[in-house]
Amino acid sequence: MMPESPIRKLVPYAEDAKKKGIKVIHLNIGQPDIKTPQVALDAIKNNTIEVLEYSRSEGSEQYREKLAAYYKNHNIDVVAKDIIITTGGSEALLFAMGSIADADDEIIIPEPFYANYNGFATASGVKIVPVISKIEDNFALPAIEEFEKLITPKTKAILICNPGNPTGYLYSKEEIEKLAQIVLKHDIFLIADEVYREFAYDGVKHYSIMEIEGLEQHAIMIDSVSKRYSMCGARIGCLVSKNKEVITTALKYAQARLSPPTYAQIASEAALETPQTYFDEVITEYVSRRDILIEELSKVPGVKVANPKGAFYCIAELPVANADDFAQWLLENFEYEGETVMVAPAAGFYSTPGLGLNQIRIAYVLEKEKIVRAVRILQEALKAYNA
Amino acid sequence: MMPESPIRKLVPYAEDAKKKGIKVIHLNIGQPDIKTPQVALDAIKNNTIEVLEYSRSEGSEQYREKLAAYYKNHNIDVVAKDIIITTGGSEALLFAMGSIADADDEIIIPEPFYANYNGFATASGVKIVPVISKIEDNFALPAIEEFEKLITPKTKAILICNPGNPTGYLYSKEEIEKLAQIVLKHDIFLIADEVYREFAYDGVKHYSIMEIEGLEQHAIMIDSVSKRYSMCGARIGCLVSKNKEVITTALKYAQARLSPPTYAQIASEAALETPQTYFDEVITEYVSRRDILIEELSKVPGVKVANPKGAFYCIAELPVANADDFAQWLLENFEYEGETVMVAPAAGFYSTPGLGLNQIRIAYVLEKEKIVRAVRILQEALKAYNA
Ligand SMILES: Cc1ncc(COP(=O)(O)O)c(C=O)c1O
Ligand SMILES: Cc1ncc(COP(=O)(O)O)c(C=O)c1O
Repeated sequence: MMPESPIRKLVPYAEDAKKKGIKVIHLNIGQPDIKTPQVALDAIKNNTIEVLEYSRSEGSEQYREKLAAYYKNHNIDVVAKDIIITTGGSEALLFAMGSIADADDEIIIPEPFYANYNGFATASGVKIVPVISKIEDNFALPAIEEFEKLITPKTKAILICNPGNPTGYLYSKEEIEKLAQIVLKHDIFLIADEVYREFAYDGVKHYSIMEIEGLEQHAIMIDSVSKRYSMCGARIGCLVSKNKEVITTALKYAQARLSPPTYAQIASEAALETPQTYFDEVITEYVSRRDILIEELSKVPGVKVANPKGAFYCIAELPVANADDFAQWLLENFEYEGETVMVAPAAGFYSTPGLGLNQIRIAYVLEKEKIVRAVRILQEALKAYNA
Repeated sequence: MMPESPIRKLVPYAEDAKKKGIKVIHLNIGQPDIKTPQVALDAIKNNTIEVLEYSRSEGSEQYREKLAAYYKNHNIDVVAKDIIITTGGSEALLFAMGSIADADDEIIIPEPFYANYNGFATASGVKIVPVISKIEDNFALPAIEEFEKLITPKTKAILICNPGNPTGYLYSKEEIEKLAQIVLKHDIFLIADEVYREFAYDGVKHYSIMEIEGLEQHAIMIDSVSKRYSMCGARIGCLVSKNKEVITTALKYAQARLSPPTYAQIASEAALETPQTYFDEVITEYVSRRDILIEELSKVPGVKVANPKGAFYCIAELPVANADDFAQWLLENFEYEGETVMVAPAAGFYSTPGLGLNQIRIAYVLEKEKIVRAVRILQEALKAYNA
């Protein structure tokens, strides 16, 4: 059974609220409001295609060459043939799971995790085995023993998201190295979803699993242009590995679906020319949004918040028993001066039943004034809800 | 295990031939050389996107509305909510299989069939059960008893491709109605891959499974802009069904991968405005290509050919024991005045071992002079091969 995304069931309530004339501030979605780099937009407007042909299944040669150069600049030593261009990071995740696991095999993932991993696992017939990370620890890597307890002959990989959605946690070099040791010891894969790589804050450098010497045959990196260039609608990502067998198998998946989108590859190739100033500005913007969000949330009585070091999400614990009910109530029964907020209940990001019940995920992809306003509304709502 | 496409293993031989300076005429690929409608190309060049956002998972509302109107014009009575926009017909096939079948369920498909059905079935954990259609019968629908013999409690659907790749066969209204009766009797689905709908020749009208009254809850149509508008690189298709449960489940797959490509939806929406003259010209072109191909092939001693009524493929039987070996030999050991041809061995389109061994698939997506030339080379090659 395909699982439903944790946010979807709230959508009708949000629509009803809007119909009643209530303004809904969305803290629930990871769609950045940042402008796409002009160089990418221009490449599309200036394209000279006359026959919109399939590209190669593994993606255009020229784009893959340039992407390899981009990775070299980021201390990741790969060549074009280690890269398969996919239709978003989403498809790369699907290919990765399909390529390394058979039906009923297991993949260990620290929870809370990106809810769509459930969907890709279901579609691939793979079982997700969660290992718990805690808000009290700021969602740091669970102890290595916790992973080892879960490894069985069916375990094919550990999958991490770095920086994390929904936690905003950025794994340290030491944590990544610890994971490398376990996967080498048990001869399984380490898959890292690094689609938020560029979003590492406070001067901390993002450390990729592709940088670890000796891990080459065990590392599979998932990447995407969606968030990096605010190009979510392009649908371009990639699967990167130096393991030839993984690439050969993933390529068969790629060949079955023929090719990734051609226009989007043109935009993504051009986006590689985005000047550093673009990222500097974007990072500055996100950091100040995060700082305001955390500052404001900390002032709300009863709210506990993990301090995100990357991506643009954070998990907040609320003084409510069930954040699912509260999120629905916010849309169904609450308004503050004509406005309310929509949040993502965090339980959907956990796979262990009962965890995260009093937590929500907040995406800080909106302007600072709106963030301040949203937290204000949340505070009023909590007061009313608990009264 | 993901199967490999039947053409892929020949690719290195084709590359070697080209390195030796031999010109390779490709009869093996379904990538049309026809120009994409200007209205679609212009829509992309004139787009005004500033933030390239995710679209809705089911596709843009506006595109789906217009697409429903297009179908109404084609005698298919559907509304936007019966349509999920997918990343090519490929993804629609994957969603369809995933939505109606669990692991180890079975889908019956007349063979020879589009080879990538194997890939989608493997990715979905579904088993393909072939029912044989014969070149002697021009690949008409196998007798209904042949289908019924194969139906088990695990059978979830019959999948047809109409018009057919690789056969070029166009099912008649009577054939479609017969299939409808079986699926209704056994309460299974009829999935029709109609991506070549527009390519029906000789004045015969294409008859869609969506036109059959009473089949609404059992019909799933797969469609694509790839061939219709020569827009293969767009990667836009759709899954269409009036069965709400199917749409609800398919939508979960769609939501997990977030959205279909945004630029490509703009191009596809604009393509709906393509004037009828475009299709008239394209159809005229394909018909004359087909006619020349069949005429030339019929002159080659020992070659038997089915007469295609749609799409742009045909299956030819050759006077060789193994078309796989012959296809490789064509690239490895043959040239005629500096040229050779690349063909798709048809065995890859059969799932019953041993079938189609002496057949090849030819795609007539190249200019008439090239077709004549290619058949000439094929004839010389057969002479040399059998000498
Ligand atoms: C952690 C994570 N991985 C992967 C994705 C998939 O993104 P896309 O398919 O747009 O590349 C997302 C999108 O939100 C995400 O948050
Ligand atoms: C019969 C058939 N179905 C589906 C497809 C998938 O095409 P696309 O994913 O480009 O829509 C093809 C492509 O060749 C095909 O021949």
